[in-house]
Amino acid sequence: MTLDPAVAATRLAVRTTLADLEPGSVVLVACSGGADSLALLAATVFEGSSAAWYVIGATVDHGLQEGSAAHADQVVAQMSAIGAAETVTATVHVEAGGLGPEAAARRARHAVLEEMAGRFGAAAVLLGHTRDDQAETVLLGLARGSGGRSITGMRPAYDAVRRPFLGVTRAQTLQACAAQGIEPWDDPHNHDDRFARVRVRERVLPVLERELGPGVAAALARTGDLLRRDLDTLDDLADALAGAATTADGIDLGVLADQPDALVSRVLRGAALAAGAPAAELFAVHVDALLELARGRLRGAGGGQVQLPGGVTAHRAADRLLFTATPVAP
Amino acid sequence: MTLDPAVAATRLAVRTTLADLEPGSVVLVACSGGADSLALLAATVFEGSSAAWYVIGATVDHGLQEGSAAHADQVVAQMSAIGAAETVTATVHVEAGGLGPEAAARRARHAVLEEMAGRFGAAAVLLGHTRDDQAETVLLGLARGSGGRSITGMRPAYDAVRRPFLGVTRAQTLQACAAQGIEPWDDPHNHDDRFARVRVRERVLPVLERELGPGVAAALARTGDLLRRDLDTLDDLADALAGAATTADGIDLGVLADQPDALVSRVLRGAALAAGAPAAELFAVHVDALLELARGRLRGAGGGQVQLPGGVTAHRAADRLLFTATPVAP
Repeated sequence: MTLDPAVAATRLAVRTTLADLEPGSVVLVACSGGADSLALLAATVFEGSSAAWYVIGATVDHGLQEGSAAHADQVVAQMSAIGAAETVTATVHVEAGGLGPEAAARRARHAVLEEMAGRFGAAAVLLGHTRDDQAETVLLGLARGSGGRSITGMRPAYDAVRRPFLGVTRAQTLQACAAQGIEPWDDPHNHDDRFARVRVRERVLPVLERELGPGVAAALARTGDLLRRDLDTLDDLADALAGAATTADGIDLGVLADQPDALVSRVLRGAALAAGAPAAELFAVHVDALLELARGRLRGAGGGQVQLPGGVTAHRAADRLLFTATPVAP
Repeated sequence: MTLDPAVAATRLAVRTTLADLEPGSVVLVACSGGADSLALLAATVFEGSSAAWYVIGATVDHGLQEGSAAHADQVVAQMSAIGAAETVTATVHVEAGGLGPEAAARRARHAVLEEMAGRFGAAAVLLGHTRDDQAETVLLGLARGSGGRSITGMRPAYDAVRRPFLGVTRAQTLQACAAQGIEPWDDPHNHDDRFARVRVRERVLPVLERELGPGVAAALARTGDLLRRDLDTLDDLADALAGAATTADGIDLGVLADQPDALVSRVLRGAALAAGAPAAELFAVHVDALLELARGRLRGAGGGQVQLPGGVTAHRAADRLLFTATPVAP
């Protein structure tokens, strides 16, 4: 019997991504019951049998949809059938707060996965995002227009989290499930066009592929990837510069004088955030004003200071830039 | 009589972009006869009357379409009517060669504009690309997937060339023409769906705007803009690093050792190009292999060298990286 190519692709992705794990490592696989996460669990169980990992299937019940508890039970049964050594269900209470329902659910899910990873001593927590998810993320970021960082997409790895399937397509995960007799769940949220992501998936990407060629999703994911390396480097260089320029009495502008705008902007943005300006309200226009102030190019009335969101003021005194936070009246 | 807001926007864009020009400067405006370039000429003539610029309207006959000579004559008449101090027509012969017809025409047009700029001693050559053109360029680059640089869009300025309208919309240029009694030409090429740019304009961007909101074109242009600053900085830092690492007998790997991948990759790519590897065939996969070689991480057979396109070989000897070009058999 020949191995299905999609199954082979999912296993190769897991093997490559987790090549550094020691035998006996605990691997936690987050499963929604969708094709991506079930294919990920199956590939991890398969690879883990020779690599001697202890594979735990974890599902999160957001309580957002009718019958979500019954759905979680069904996912647990599937995870056991696929061969997880252990299964775990976490129930979370999603509070939207200022976030949209998608973002709130994601935040709650990540928090509980982190908690579980700590509890089980997991060496890795695997998420099943595919190349298609990545392309959607890049396109959504592009539409926001908030600069390069918004289009670098999802990180392949951070803390214990890894995303082995960022190079695997959604179609491959569906095929891998079919070839292994796994019946994935089709989340109705995945077709609810109130979500921008669903509109990108069902209406925007198909048009892009039709008009510009079938490689667009791959190209979007690749661009995000190449860009992430570049921007991580600029962030690292800016961190080092910030360390050199930060003094007990403000930012030493002499240290920044000969440095490029792209680095100085990052240092100033970081200082504004540290002084209490809220990230969600600190825009490029504010950072540009700080740069003009630091460069001594600010003209006109109020030339010596810049007002920032959150009651933070930046002002220049000799060769120092100082940030002060005005307490907001109660 | 109130000034039409679109006319005001075009004039402000020209005034801001050319604020540094001395009185008496020669300004060459490239005109196709489309709304963007005629609106640009009109705004430049208006601003030039108080700033004392000598404004020349230049049109290029590509000889690509039936009746192109008659069209060029008509554009000349329009440029005079708008108030250009002088008009000039250049006829170019477009050889497609390895390029598509769009790219070949663009290259021929830029070469002749450069020649004219030299001949007239122009302080600035203005091109009428709008924010919509920029959004299309960013989206086309994104679909190519060749990394961040492919989505930074058109540069606002280089050499003598400036693009004052990158913040002005196509609709504003149409409105500015209408308000000033200028009848723009509607190039049939602009609706020929064999061109990827036309498909982006007529089919892709409208879908993006409908599904993700009306600000998408502006967001695309803004993202390209923010990214250009970041990537220019990395290129500058890499140039400095290349200068420090390049010796008479190859690249000094000791100098590169503690530097980030994003900079070292750029240095190695530049060295490969300098050694004769053709830019059009040198892909990310080649640069990644060079990086592995430089970092001493290359495994397996041929671990000491990397074959590059164009018969170029990179090999490592002690702490140096050397590039050799093998003459291709005749």
